[in-house]
Amino acid sequence: MIQLDNFKNILDRYKIIFFDAFGVLKNYKGLVPGIEQTFAYMQEQQKEYYIVTNDASRSPMGLAESYHSLGLHAVKHDRIISSGMLAKEYLDLKVNSGIVAYLGTLNSAHYIDSSGLHTLPVSAINSTNIDQVNALVLLDDEGFNWFDDLNKVVNILRKRTIPAIVANTDNTYPLSGGNEVSIAIGGIASMIEGILGKRFIRFGKPDSQMFMFAYDLIRERMPVSKKEILMVGDTLHTDIMGGNKFGLDTVLVLTGNTLPDDAETRIRSTGIVPTYVCTTAVVD
Amino acid sequence: MIQLDNFKNILDRYKIIFFDAFGVLKNYKGLVPGIEQTFAYMQEQQKEYYIVTNDASRSPMGLAESYHSLGLHAVKHDRIISSGMLAKEYLDLKVNSGIVAYLGTLNSAHYIDSSGLHTLPVSAINSTNIDQVNALVLLDDEGFNWFDDLNKVVNILRKRTIPAIVANTDNTYPLSGGNEVSIAIGGIASMIEGILGKRFIRFGKPDSQMFMFAYDLIRERMPVSKKEILMVGDTLHTDIMGGNKFGLDTVLVLTGNTLPDDAETRIRSTGIVPTYVCTTAVVD
Amino acid sequence: MIQLDNFKNILDRYKIIFFDAFGVLKNYKGLVPGIEQTFAYMQEQQKEYYIVTNDASRSPMGLAESYHSLGLHAVKHDRIISSGMLAKEYLDLKVNSGIVAYLGTLNSAHYIDSSGLHTLPVSAINSTNIDQVNALVLLDDEGFNWFDDLNKVVNILRKRTIPAIVANTDNTYPLSGGNEVSIAIGGIASMIEGILGKRFIRFGKPDSQMFMFAYDLIRERMPVSKKEILMVGDTLHTDIMGGNKFGLDTVLVLTGNTLPDDAETRIRSTGIVPTYVCTTAVVD
Amino acid sequence: MIQLDNFKNILDRYKIIFFDAFGVLKNYKGLVPGIEQTFAYMQEQQKEYYIVTNDASRSPMGLAESYHSLGLHAVKHDRIISSGMLAKEYLDLKVNSGIVAYLGTLNSAHYIDSSGLHTLPVSAINSTNIDQVNALVLLDDEGFNWFDDLNKVVNILRKRTIPAIVANTDNTYPLSGGNEVSIAIGGIASMIEGILGKRFIRFGKPDSQMFMFAYDLIRERMPVSKKEILMVGDTLHTDIMGGNKFGLDTVLVLTGNTLPDDAETRIRSTGIVPTYVCTTAVVD
Repeated sequence: MIQLDNFKNILDRYKIIFFDAFGVLKNYKGLVPGIEQTFAYMQEQQKEYYIVTNDASRSPMGLAESYHSLGLHAVKHDRIISSGMLAKEYLDLKVNSGIVAYLGTLNSAHYIDSSGLHTLPVSAINSTNIDQVNALVLLDDEGFNWFDDLNKVVNILRKRTIPAIVANTDNTYPLSGGNEVSIAIGGIASMIEGILGKRFIRFGKPDSQMFMFAYDLIRERMPVSKKEILMVGDTLHTDIMGGNKFGLDTVLVLTGNTLPDDAETRIRSTGIVPTYVCTTAVVD
Repeated sequence: MIQLDNFKNILDRYKIIFFDAFGVLKNYKGLVPGIEQTFAYMQEQQKEYYIVTNDASRSPMGLAESYHSLGLHAVKHDRIISSGMLAKEYLDLKVNSGIVAYLGTLNSAHYIDSSGLHTLPVSAINSTNIDQVNALVLLDDEGFNWFDDLNKVVNILRKRTIPAIVANTDNTYPLSGGNEVSIAIGGIASMIEGILGKRFIRFGKPDSQMFMFAYDLIRERMPVSKKEILMVGDTLHTDIMGGNKFGLDTVLVLTGNTLPDDAETRIRSTGIVPTYVCTTAVVD
Repeated sequence: MIQLDNFKNILDRYKIIFFDAFGVLKNYKGLVPGIEQTFAYMQEQQKEYYIVTNDASRSPMGLAESYHSLGLHAVKHDRIISSGMLAKEYLDLKVNSGIVAYLGTLNSAHYIDSSGLHTLPVSAINSTNIDQVNALVLLDDEGFNWFDDLNKVVNILRKRTIPAIVANTDNTYPLSGGNEVSIAIGGIASMIEGILGKRFIRFGKPDSQMFMFAYDLIRERMPVSKKEILMVGDTLHTDIMGGNKFGLDTVLVLTGNTLPDDAETRIRSTGIVPTYVCTTAVVD
Repeated sequence: MIQLDNFKNILDRYKIIFFDAFGVLKNYKGLVPGIEQTFAYMQEQQKEYYIVTNDASRSPMGLAESYHSLGLHAVKHDRIISSGMLAKEYLDLKVNSGIVAYLGTLNSAHYIDSSGLHTLPVSAINSTNIDQVNALVLLDDEGFNWFDDLNKVVNILRKRTIPAIVANTDNTYPLSGGNEVSIAIGGIASMIEGILGKRFIRFGKPDSQMFMFAYDLIRERMPVSKKEILMVGDTLHTDIMGGNKFGLDTVLVLTGNTLPDDAETRIRSTGIVPTYVCTTAVVD
């Protein structure tokens, strides 16, 4: 049987904690009950934290507000690292002019705006402007007509040899109703990659670039070693795989994608081994 | 350089010809010009033919009518083998009661109707009837709302351990406009398989079952050896791969998916080698 | 909980039984204890049987002898259908001259010998004869030096655009010692396909061609409907998937790859649903 | 047609140059003729360089010596970043005790030695020490018996739930003879992942961690922006994909894996677009 550890005991051994968001801090019902205590304890103990999330649907500011409205006021927007920020950094560094076409909501598109670039939904691309499209970004599964715009994406990428960026590598996300899921933009991206035989640029855990982004932000403020950082997540393939590969110790919590009854089987069948397993990230 | 053969000379050596439909007999503009002559020549020479197609959007009767309306009256409905017929055979043999949910048009659903089964679009599945759904068939990319119904399919297959059948394995099909394509139901099926980690039952070339179905129909009427059958197609991965594997001699024609300039490179890079390459299936 | 059925009751309802070999009739220790009774009962009840196996390491004659030496004398060689027989049929129909290079033992190569072809191990291919190699067959994981000959296969297939045939699609097989496995030629084939980006011609369950081969042999002797045939196997991805797709009723037995404790989880997670589940294929 | 740029003109615009090794600085014949001039010019112009290579067969010291012996004395060992260094960092950070089993030569194993760990070839693992194996590292395709040790790796990973690390993600490497290749450890790793259904930890381009490692080393010595770094490589899927994703400008050179005649087709078919294309990295 799998050995369960006490989250508080583990927390005490690290200086900085990286949290996944969905399934760790919140779920479809709202906040994970008691999670405020974890943030209070970290403040008291002078632990630093970052939230490292594959959610590219809103800006860090928008994400922080969603925690505040749920009653978790301790979360600061400058401690939220989203895969959307990596997409934005890519555009800033690599695309200098023309149109960036996107799939997603207006909200998701807003914060990838970059100087010199014109951001347009895929639905607004036509024969008069397609030649100016210099990048295509897949941000969110909502905000567009799937039939029209997914077919359009396939044809844009057949005509234009441009980078396609995926800002969320997840295949599905849980729906607010309960045990139903919704197809995420990462799942849609895989379909289009398969159809075209092309490789998209994917940002998001388990990729190291997410962790590096947070790690760089910390090091601007203080010296730190990877041995002092703990990654906490509910998903083996993203949070634990990514944290391990980056060289961090990892905690699998059982409040989200990995159910208590499945944890042991999944760890064994995937070969992705967290340093610790805890029932929850709540300190009580 | 690739050696091009004369189609008439090749035809003369075989007793029965299997044709792929799209890219061989017709394309987005209508009939391949002159293809009537091939059918006239086959009749004159007492060659038998079958059309072996991954098109599950209509019944063989409906497909035959579409040739007639284009002016090719020689095509008989009982010589058309579609992947949809295999889906229907599967339901007849393996599903005895309850609801068959489907993605596709009413036309595509009509001919999979099977005695004792109730055929319903995925959009009509809800909490009151989901427990009676005993199979799910992916027939066509049209006739439903992608966002609503693809998400619904994912959740139906998470709740019900039932067979999911794909009646068309193609990823895309050419659009009538010219050099644009549309995502086919086979591409959508791959996305859902990837998301769920499940294996669907796929009917359609290159799978042998398509060829076997036609081969069985011939043998009911006359004795025949595989050496006497020629498969003619425009796509290496489906027509040529499937024909070769079934043990047939194969002709790649260059009026569809494989362009004259690409044929040699594609044969070499895929390792899928047709017995012959001809510019067209037209006998002149 | 999964419902377990009595194998004898099921057997009584069918006229012809297809058996997988390994994990159903025999395992690493020898015969499945009591399996002789099943063959005695079938003879008494005038049921016909075929053994449908992905074992291409020996001829049907050699496979039958291995049952006889274990004490199961009822197995006749003309009732054994192996994936190697399909490889042989392919060579007979499609390759008319030159050298067939192979990976495997001399035993495995012996029965693919075809008139007009010269069969040579990959190790014997060199610059003087490579231009005459017209097909490459992957038969068995033994009988060659992996480092030398796998590298040689990659380079032969880079130079020669010829069909590569895989006569056993399994990834691993159980070792006689107990709970260890050995990499099968199907796993090796996948590696080489991945490296070259080429598609090999694969024979073996779950592909329908295996079932069709047996079905054709029966129909030469008597009229039969697919509804009268039962497929019995221990592996969901090959035996059950293939049997279902071909339109047969299927029995999963728990004496091989699928353990009693895992059966329900695996059926649910793969979506491959047998018609029945029985602890064993032994009639008692 | 693709536009070819002059390498010297491009070099002049950047402060730091990352080079891939094989196909850029050297090939199977030895050094790329004239490449010393590039290093002389960089020294003269006070450009910094790093060699970023998926070669885990030797230590940076050993790799530097191989350049010296070929006559390129400008290459310093502390400017070589290999995927093997990332494997070593992983072991230092994440594995604290026990045995690290490896596939590869003694040379490749030597530099992953880490304090507190006992490094043993896979061939030395047996029933008396398997329980102490806490990680398995795939370093090189030479130095072991493929049949024995690949089968052993499969069985070790079936018994022990431990991380498996791949220190070279390449599928093949060119052989010294000319146009032949050899299967690399990355290709072997994919086979074993496929057989086990497990995910290995892969270090090497295109993964960002390689670039980050070099980037961190630079920043310890001077402030630098990603805009001042140029990545030069011969392979789209590793060098260019990885450089682009990390936010660097990229040059594809045509002295290695990508041939002049194929460059345009490959860029279009993969969708991986270098910032520039140059015939060579030689400054003349």
